Amino acid sequence: MNATPAPPKQPPAQYGDLRAMFINCTLKRSDGEDSHTQRLIEVAAGVMRTQGVTVETVRAVDFELAPGVQPDMTEHGFERDDWPRLCKRVMAADILVLCTPIWLGEQSSVCRRVIERLYAESAKTGDNGQYLYYGRVGGALVTGNEDGIKHCASSLLYALNHIGYTIAPAADAGWIGEAGPGKSYGDDGCGFDNDFTQRNTTFMAWNLMHLARMLKDVGGIPAHGNLPGAWKDGQRFDHPDPAEAARRADAD
Amino acid sequence: MNATPAPPKQPPAQYGDLRAMFINCTLKRSDGEDSHTQRLIEVAAGVMRTQGVTVETVRAVDFELAPGVQPDMTEHGFERDDWPRLCKRVMAADILVLCTPIWLGEQSSVCRRVIERLYAESAKTGDNGQYLYYGRVGGALVTGNEDGIKHCASSLLYALNHIGYTIAPAADAGWIGEAGPGKSYGDDGCGFDNDFTQRNTTFMAWNLMHLARMLKDVGGIPAHGNLPGAWKDGQRFDHPDPAEAARRADAD
Amino acid sequence: MNATPAPPKQPPAQYGDLRAMFINCTLKRSDGEDSHTQRLIEVAAGVMRTQGVTVETVRAVDFELAPGVQPDMTEHGFERDDWPRLCKRVMAADILVLCTPIWLGEQSSVCRRVIERLYAESAKTGDNGQYLYYGRVGGALVTGNEDGIKHCASSLLYALNHIGYTIAPAADAGWIGEAGPGKSYGDDGCGFDNDFTQRNTTFMAWNLMHLARMLKDVGGIPAHGNLPGAWKDGQRFDHPDPAEAARRADAD
Amino acid sequence: MNATPAPPKQPPAQYGDLRAMFINCTLKRSDGEDSHTQRLIEVAAGVMRTQGVTVETVRAVDFELAPGVQPDMTEHGFERDDWPRLCKRVMAADILVLCTPIWLGEQSSVCRRVIERLYAESAKTGDNGQYLYYGRVGGALVTGNEDGIKHCASSLLYALNHIGYTIAPAADAGWIGEAGPGKSYGDDGCGFDNDFTQRNTTFMAWNLMHLARMLKDVGGIPAHGNLPGAWKDGQRFDHPDPAEAARRADAD
Repeated sequence: MNATPAPPKQPPAQYGDLRAMFINCTLKRSDGEDSHTQRLIEVAAGVMRTQGVTVETVRAVDFELAPGVQPDMTEHGFERDDWPRLCKRVMAADILVLCTPIWLGEQSSVCRRVIERLYAESAKTGDNGQYLYYGRVGGALVTGNEDGIKHCASSLLYALNHIGYTIAPAADAGWIGEAGPGKSYGDDGCGFDNDFTQRNTTFMAWNLMHLARMLKDVGGIPAHGNLPGAWKDGQRFDHPDPAEAARRADAD
Repeated sequence: MNATPAPPKQPPAQYGDLRAMFINCTLKRSDGEDSHTQRLIEVAAGVMRTQGVTVETVRAVDFELAPGVQPDMTEHGFERDDWPRLCKRVMAADILVLCTPIWLGEQSSVCRRVIERLYAESAKTGDNGQYLYYGRVGGALVTGNEDGIKHCASSLLYALNHIGYTIAPAADAGWIGEAGPGKSYGDDGCGFDNDFTQRNTTFMAWNLMHLARMLKDVGGIPAHGNLPGAWKDGQRFDHPDPAEAARRADAD
Repeated sequence: MNATPAPPKQPPAQYGDLRAMFINCTLKRSDGEDSHTQRLIEVAAGVMRTQGVTVETVRAVDFELAPGVQPDMTEHGFERDDWPRLCKRVMAADILVLCTPIWLGEQSSVCRRVIERLYAESAKTGDNGQYLYYGRVGGALVTGNEDGIKHCASSLLYALNHIGYTIAPAADAGWIGEAGPGKSYGDDGCGFDNDFTQRNTTFMAWNLMHLARMLKDVGGIPAHGNLPGAWKDGQRFDHPDPAEAARRADAD
Repeated sequence: MNATPAPPKQPPAQYGDLRAMFINCTLKRSDGEDSHTQRLIEVAAGVMRTQGVTVETVRAVDFELAPGVQPDMTEHGFERDDWPRLCKRVMAADILVLCTPIWLGEQSSVCRRVIERLYAESAKTGDNGQYLYYGRVGGALVTGNEDGIKHCASSLLYALNHIGYTIAPAADAGWIGEAGPGKSYGDDGCGFDNDFTQRNTTFMAWNLMHLARMLKDVGGIPAHGNLPGAWKDGQRFDHPDPAEAARRADAD
């Protein structure tokens, strides 16, 4: 029954050299309707901006992202593909937050398209031999009117993690209302006083900053045991004989 | 077309003070059949043991884990509940890897039970005011005979992340065969020569060690911006006015 | 702007020969706490009972369902296994509704266990050569305090369908509240006035009855094109040469 | 140990008046690469065509389907939207099979877009007061190189069911190879000799035909207990008092 210790008044570090990118996967273009998801993005982005993080937010639907899983689809028969220029901005960011509305319980088609294109870069390696996304930190924001935050967040965070992002603790937040049709986030103030949503969004923002700070300070994930080129060349990084490992398991 | 740079021959750190726990959520008790999942666990565990990590593996089905979402179900009408003693071992570990077989495309009932019990501890906070799982690192191993690694891993990693674990890059691995009934991992050597499975399992082991090392060296996730008690007491950690954030979004 | 036509006042058939089973996969035993899920079950069950359907509801957690995927685990080292007697009741029912609470966004461990055991019977065939679950109708009910109806229902309905159940239109319903901790279904009347929940639960009950009526009247799914024994014996039911089919696809 | 009874040599009905539509959600346009998914589609389509079913297959990516959840997005700021004409073909079909490749374990962005647009029509009702999709039958085909059939099928079938489609028994099939990169369906004949894939695809085709036949013969799902307009007007179709239902549950 200890009292919670008073937390430090000051943040433990400075974050002014960090860059964060929020990709809003709403179906609505910027020249169209307001995006409920954008309203929640601005909460997380606001926390970061206060700490000096350079924050960029984009609506993916404003870009023409060609279907396909090659880095540049104009080399595969498409006249236009905005992915290469969007990708440059992703690669410039220490933190990437995928943000999606929910439709029929799932992430949007725009979100899926962004993930397909992110995936297309995932086999590329950098100067240190690691996949390009290593050393970066990922999170997810999800809004809908009634159901699906966890399911969508699970899929978004998994995609980011699978391609190399580190996922900060509790790196998802969102808002939904009661079952059935109804208002979405920010309609008539809906969700503004939801303590759970506002707190989790804030905690997520901080945890993303903490991990990004930590990774930047130590120069990213150590380049050992996770180098596809070296593995291909025969390095095994203590990988045991699988048959021997299986015998050990069966004898257990 | 650069050559991949030669990776460091030596690991970048020492790991002898780390503890890792693999919870195998097979449906088979230790006194029964061999567990295919255990065979893959021993590959990841082997990498870690070579680096001096103290590795513990358990089959959750050997324990009597009462149904419910309270820390100790003997206080809620159950005669026996082995969770409290299993929980102590989870709390002693820097790294937790949830490991599950696949049945009908999903994680096992035993795995779901373990997650329910882990979840029951997730509201507790430690001396620094953070949730107890903060500062720990999570991963997932999945085996089956035909389908479902990513779906199961996604759910396992999400659960770990949501309660506070940091998810190391590419923190899942597994083996499945071609669509349809067939052999499972390790049956007649199945999967031993699957380069993808063996490599990813090794990379996962290393990434878990890297993150655990990093977090241990800096004393965990900084205790700022993620303190439920402080939030409850009114600290806001730069949380902006949600209404103002929404206006900013709508004006965009 | 046509007026909705007045629906028939009388139901189009009689249902007194139908049997429905609701398996409540709550974590709470009958001798313990009230089950929120049971409260919604009684709504759907009430619709059916009014039409004379024989309705049975059970809490699976009251049974000792051994872990494993064999029909009777007492033949595989377990002292007790209540599945065989529960299974008989499942097999006696025309309609099966799997019902689950949500924990961390997912179906309960008890629900997963029930599905594992249902699955264990799925390779058995009946007198007409079809899998035993053919000719039966499945649905799902889900309750939680904040998120996950669709994700859980999707998994439950998929499991039922994959093993042979026909899924009636809109065969899921449920209730959740706004994001964050809060009341569950029926706490202080929560959800009783949710039109969406009450309507969908009613529609689900009717659609299950309609399909069960229809299937019973025609003697189930016709035994042609879906007979594993016959397929094994070489019957192909118009299955084309896959290579020829692929050529046709590629030429398209 | 009974012998499986010899199945009827002749199909139990005629199917020449049925229409089936397969929407292939590959990322590849018809004027581009071959679609692996199309190769499996032609197997199911082949079964149906032999029975005289009118089968139509389209690649959704050939159409310009605007983002959004309104029936016609040209009324909402988009210059072009091919959905209305695609939708007419969907509405003309008794059977709809959604077909998707797997990318990073999930259905394609094109598939998600198709579902968003299907969803946009789901609140419309027909002459009998039911939602427009009632009385139709749905299925799913999924191909990938390594993982995710069940997860994708589960999401596709759920979407179809939720908007009103009846899901025939075992209404999904697919092909994936062993874990890791590798060939896709039909590459060098991959999957042609996979008994599980070929059998399930055939069974699915027949079960879709059986249900469509059955529903057509009886004039669709009976229009009782599932009429949104009538519910709105106060008809309750035996819906019990939820409070009374809850009391019954709690007393149990």
